[in-house]
Amino acid sequence: MSLPEPEPEPGDAGAQFLTEIHEQPQALLRLLEHDGEYARVAELARERGARIVRMVGHGSSDNAASYGVYAFGLVPQWTAFRDSISLSVHYGTKLDMSGTAAIGLSQSGRTPDVVKYLERAGHNGAFTVALTNDTDSELAAVAEAVLPLDAGPEHAVAATKTYLNQVAALGLLASHAAGKGQRFATGIRLVAEELAELFPVLERRVFPIASAFAFTGRMFVIGRGPEFATAREIALKLLETTRVAAEPMTATDLAHGPVAALDPLFPVWAIASDDETLSAVVEGAERSREAGATLIASGAAADAIPDAAYRLPLPNLGSRLLGPLLSVVPGQLFAWALARARGLDPDRPRGLSKVTLAL
Amino acid sequence: MSLPEPEPEPGDAGAQFLTEIHEQPQALLRLLEHDGEYARVAELARERGARIVRMVGHGSSDNAASYGVYAFGLVPQWTAFRDSISLSVHYGTKLDMSGTAAIGLSQSGRTPDVVKYLERAGHNGAFTVALTNDTDSELAAVAEAVLPLDAGPEHAVAATKTYLNQVAALGLLASHAAGKGQRFATGIRLVAEELAELFPVLERRVFPIASAFAFTGRMFVIGRGPEFATAREIALKLLETTRVAAEPMTATDLAHGPVAALDPLFPVWAIASDDETLSAVVEGAERSREAGATLIASGAAADAIPDAAYRLPLPNLGSRLLGPLLSVVPGQLFAWALARARGLDPDRPRGLSKVTLAL
Repeated sequence: MSLPEPEPEPGDAGAQFLTEIHEQPQALLRLLEHDGEYARVAELARERGARIVRMVGHGSSDNAASYGVYAFGLVPQWTAFRDSISLSVHYGTKLDMSGTAAIGLSQSGRTPDVVKYLERAGHNGAFTVALTNDTDSELAAVAEAVLPLDAGPEHAVAATKTYLNQVAALGLLASHAAGKGQRFATGIRLVAEELAELFPVLERRVFPIASAFAFTGRMFVIGRGPEFATAREIALKLLETTRVAAEPMTATDLAHGPVAALDPLFPVWAIASDDETLSAVVEGAERSREAGATLIASGAAADAIPDAAYRLPLPNLGSRLLGPLLSVVPGQLFAWALARARGLDPDRPRGLSKVTLAL
Repeated sequence: MSLPEPEPEPGDAGAQFLTEIHEQPQALLRLLEHDGEYARVAELARERGARIVRMVGHGSSDNAASYGVYAFGLVPQWTAFRDSISLSVHYGTKLDMSGTAAIGLSQSGRTPDVVKYLERAGHNGAFTVALTNDTDSELAAVAEAVLPLDAGPEHAVAATKTYLNQVAALGLLASHAAGKGQRFATGIRLVAEELAELFPVLERRVFPIASAFAFTGRMFVIGRGPEFATAREIALKLLETTRVAAEPMTATDLAHGPVAALDPLFPVWAIASDDETLSAVVEGAERSREAGATLIASGAAADAIPDAAYRLPLPNLGSRLLGPLLSVVPGQLFAWALARARGLDPDRPRGLSKVTLAL
């Protein structure tokens, strides 16, 4: 067993990551240039009788799929879920997928098991959709319909623009499936405007929090409903860029066991939105405080979290499905600031490459 | 911020937890006394045209549901997934659930949002099944069909018998749905026999590993396919009883980001079964070693994991769906031994009660 190697000094560390965080409003507006394509694919899904949606992806793509469960559930009231890749790809199970749409999510369009899954889903009767930045990719080649994310070149290993555009894309597709695409597109424009104004405010706020957590080894990130996707994505950014063992869970699952692990050195980040799940998140936060955990509260209802040591409040956009487009950003910026506070370079996480070709 | 309170001395710490681990073979055999009921409910599901299975639960129950995805996928080749509780319970979404079965998993049958979910699933057209130790519970009252787990009284807060019987119950139900119930029941009997022989061997082996990890703060637990459920359950036992920040993930997701957090003080537990997913688990383990992580390898293919510092091998039962009934046990015993090595009482996790009534 050898000790970890010393890390390079901060300096310009994370410049790429921060630049791409800042590019998110433009990326969202670029997605909207493809609005007509999203409307057509939603129409095609309806024509094909696809009232059940299977989604697959890894990492950030899988986190975005957690949002998709709520987008399809709340707007067209379709059942959507994150499907098992292993069943089709490793075990060769031939599930009857007729009456379902299968959406493969991959930034590069080259994730091997996602490509294989989508190919087999097509053979098993699903209407297949590729959601990717590269419309010439292998994933696009095996899909019946291709939807461009158009997040633009993403060089930082830890995805930011791609995640946000995946979330927006799933919300847009789900909204078009219910004839509400225009309304959601307007919402995306609103998010892009809000975000541009929020960056300087949030950046000032994350620095003191990052200093306070410079020596933190572990953290839970809790949310519920559509914000569970946000909890997963913030935890993943922390794992990738700061080496904090950050684990996402629903506010309710926290109470079913993991709360026992908490103590004053094991903080909890609570994402609170002003909707029907707020009471569950408040209760999870209260249980965390009883265990001695320090709380960070973020989101439109951050002020509703009692006894939070730090708050990163966001404007309330009045929509359950628009909230997650804003609420991931404090986590991205916190990861950037914390990585630097720990002497790490968030642009160069150890042992990762941009495209993961492993099975 | 105050420091954690000192813990009571070990002594008899964890006696209840260990007793219930040892009761698992008997609990499995008790489940088999209800074999006829499982066969009838599987027949009923077929008659109702339920070819899609929605499962809900929290904590260990949700982990067992991860196994259900593979049990229903591999045997009757039905699509199964862990459904969102929030969509139905918090947001009141009325999904069309006709042609689907909804299985509510709750040890006590009193988990409030699981009870509400199942009630609403019935209104939305699903064939509803309660899987619980208490056939007189609220969950049983709202379900069309009730399947007893019959794990017997479970006093330790951290579930062991209930989890194993939930896994066996889902495997049995799925097998009956494909007319293969008798074969699986024979397999459960085989597991009960193997387990009784394994306990003393495994107990001797976990002690030195627990000593080595007495000061570990965090850990990843990786598996894939049906063993992803095992990874989730082992991680939960560690969180509940040892306060290690243990996070489960598929071997493939590890490579998509979290591997960057690893170092020599951040070990990885790899669950390896001798099936089509082995190459993915081996690759995840190799990536972990490259990052400097110490490896624990368990499962029927533990010896296939290169460069593992510790191994907890298990017999190969020649069935992908029987493996998880054995492979969780080394994790339960390790959690028990590690809690004691850390001066904690695994019978009394802080801040937890046996029945979680929070929303």
